[in-house]
Amino acid sequence: MTSAARTDEVARAEARRRVDALAKPLGALGRLEDLAVWLAGVQGTAEPRPPQDVAVVVFAGDHGVTGDRTVSAYPRQVTAAMVREFLRGGAAVNVLARTHGARIRVVDIAVDDDLADTPPDVRRHKVRRGSGAIHREDALTEAEATAALAAGRAVADEEIDVGTDLLVPGDMGIGNTTVAATVVGAVLGLDADQVVGRGTGVDDDTWRGKRDVVAAALERARPHRGDPAALLRTVGSADLAAGTGFLVRAAERGTPVLLDGVVSGACALLAERLAPGAVAWWYAGHRSTEPAHRLALEALGLPPLLDLDLRLGEASGALAALPLLRAAPLLLAGMATLESVTLPVTESV
Amino acid sequence: MTSAARTDEVARAEARRRVDALAKPLGALGRLEDLAVWLAGVQGTAEPRPPQDVAVVVFAGDHGVTGDRTVSAYPRQVTAAMVREFLRGGAAVNVLARTHGARIRVVDIAVDDDLADTPPDVRRHKVRRGSGAIHREDALTEAEATAALAAGRAVADEEIDVGTDLLVPGDMGIGNTTVAATVVGAVLGLDADQVVGRGTGVDDDTWRGKRDVVAAALERARPHRGDPAALLRTVGSADLAAGTGFLVRAAERGTPVLLDGVVSGACALLAERLAPGAVAWWYAGHRSTEPAHRLALEALGLPPLLDLDLRLGEASGALAALPLLRAAPLLLAGMATLESVTLPVTESV
Repeated sequence: MTSAARTDEVARAEARRRVDALAKPLGALGRLEDLAVWLAGVQGTAEPRPPQDVAVVVFAGDHGVTGDRTVSAYPRQVTAAMVREFLRGGAAVNVLARTHGARIRVVDIAVDDDLADTPPDVRRHKVRRGSGAIHREDALTEAEATAALAAGRAVADEEIDVGTDLLVPGDMGIGNTTVAATVVGAVLGLDADQVVGRGTGVDDDTWRGKRDVVAAALERARPHRGDPAALLRTVGSADLAAGTGFLVRAAERGTPVLLDGVVSGACALLAERLAPGAVAWWYAGHRSTEPAHRLALEALGLPPLLDLDLRLGEASGALAALPLLRAAPLLLAGMATLESVTLPVTESV
Repeated sequence: MTSAARTDEVARAEARRRVDALAKPLGALGRLEDLAVWLAGVQGTAEPRPPQDVAVVVFAGDHGVTGDRTVSAYPRQVTAAMVREFLRGGAAVNVLARTHGARIRVVDIAVDDDLADTPPDVRRHKVRRGSGAIHREDALTEAEATAALAAGRAVADEEIDVGTDLLVPGDMGIGNTTVAATVVGAVLGLDADQVVGRGTGVDDDTWRGKRDVVAAALERARPHRGDPAALLRTVGSADLAAGTGFLVRAAERGTPVLLDGVVSGACALLAERLAPGAVAWWYAGHRSTEPAHRLALEALGLPPLLDLDLRLGEASGALAALPLLRAAPLLLAGMATLESVTLPVTESV
C-alpha cells in the first residue's frame, strides 16, 4: 500500500467561490465548473491553468487469450503493426495529439514481436512477449508483475520529471478489452455477462466465446479479489500492470491524469486499491461502449466528459476531451463577475 | 413553406467508405465518425475540412412574462447588462469564442432597453422592446413576427455572404427558457409539466409559477399547433422568431449550423416545420438540463455531442463542442488506412 498525495482543498474551495461569482447563474456551466475546480485542486492554485505539456503514454502488449481463442475481430499481429503506426504518426491518437498539442510516447511492455525495427526507447521497459492466457494460466510471474508495475511507475516519473502537467494513459493490444473486463469483474465481484462487451466489434459467436474466456478467468481470479497485485499476475497482463503503476505513481507525485477507456478504467480500479485516494488525481475523459468501462467509472465515482460511443482505446477518447479541460480554467480566468456586469444596471434603473 | 437545400449524399457515402477504411475497428470512433460524415454531406466533399470561419450570433430579447410573473432567478435588466458584457468580452461565450477561434455578433431583437450606448449594428434589427407576456397576450403582432423572422434570415445572409463556414446561434434573454419550453410543448403537443425546467436555477415555488405561465401559454397556443409562424406570434418572441428565421435561411443557403441549448432547440423545431429537411444542416452541440431541450432534440432526431449539465445559453454549449467538430475531419484526413498498417505485417508473418 502506498500513499496518494492530497489535492489542495483550500484551492478547490477558493476556486468554487470564484466560479460562483462569475457572470452566469449558479451552476449554469455544469461540469465545466467542476472541471475548473478539480484542476484547482490538482494544480494547488485557485487560478488553475490549461494543461500545456500533455504527455500521452501508450502501453502496448499482447494477450495469451488471443492465441487460444477468438476474442477479437483482429489477429494479434495488429498490435505490433499499430505500434509501428504510432511511430509513423498515422493512428487516431497521433492525429488527435497533433490537433490538440500533446506528446505521444509508445511503450512496448509485452508486444508479441521483438519490434527490432523500432527505437530502443520503445522497448526499454519490455517485460515479456505477450502475457499469459488468463483463462487457463497466470498472465505473469510474480517477478514479471513487479517489473511491469515498476515500469509504469518509472515511465510516470520520467514524464513528470520533464515538466508534464497532465498525463494521459493510452493502450494498444488485441485482446486487452477481454483482460480489462476480467479485471473489472474480479475487483467488483461481477459476472462475465455483466462486464463483457464488443471490444473491436466482435459478432455474437465471438462475444459468447469471449464471455466464456472471461468467466473462466474470473473463476481463477476468485481467491485474489482483494489483492490487486495478485489479480494483475493471475488474470491481468503486463500492459495493465504498467498502466496501474503509472496511475499510482502519478497520484503519489501529485500529477493529474485524464483517463481514457476501459483499459484505463480497469487500471484505475486497481490503482485506487493500491493507493487509496489516488482517484482524486484523475478525471474521466470519456465513457466507451464497453460495459466494464461504465461499471469501473461508476465504482470510482468518476463521471465522464464525453459519451460518444468511442471504443478505440489508444487514449483517443481522452484526447478528444482535452479541449474541455483546457477551456474550463480559461472560463474561470476570463469571465467577468456577476457583480461587475449588473452593478451599472442597478445604478441606471 | 420554403425549401431547405439538399445535403450531398454522394459525398456522405464516399466519406463513410473512407472512414470505414481507416486504421481502426469499424465504428470504433463512434460519433466522431458520424460527425465527419455529416460534415462531408454539408460541405459537399468526401474530404471535409474543419470549419474555420465560425460565426456565433447571439439573438437578445426580453419577454413580457418576466414583468408579470417570477419565472427566473434574475430580473429582466440582466438581459441588457449581458448584451453590454458580450460587447466588452467578459461573458462565457466570449471566452469560448476566443479559445476556439470564433467570431461573435450580438443582435438586439427585442431587448427592453434602448441600448443607446451600443454600436448601431447591434440595434439595426430591433423589432420592439420586449415581447408580449405570452400567458395572457400575443408575443408579437403579425408584422413584428414577420419582421423578426426576416431579421434572422438577413443576419444569416450577412454572415454567409462574408464566407462563414459554420453558423452557431446563441441567445440571451431573461425568461427565454419559459418561452422556449412553451414553443416545444406547443409543437410537440406536451403538457407544461413535461417541458418546464429550472432555467437559470429557479426554486420550487418559482418553478411552479413558471409551469403555470407555460400552461396558460400552451392553452393560448392550442389552435395554432400546426402553424409555426402563428406559434411564434402568439406564444413565441421576437428573439425566437429571429433564431428560427436564421436556421431556415442557413438551411436554404446550405450552410451548416451547430445548435446550442433549449432556445436553439425550440427554434430548430419550428424551422424544420417551416422548411422540412432543414434538420440535415444542423448538428446538436450539446444537451442542456432543460427537459424541453431533450424533447426537442429527440423529436428532431439529433443526438447531442456534449451532455455536461450546461444551462447557460449564449451559444456556450455549442462552442464547447466545437473542437470535436474540428477534430473529426482531421481524423479522416490524417489517419492511415487499415490496409496500409497491416500489409507489412502480413508480409512479415
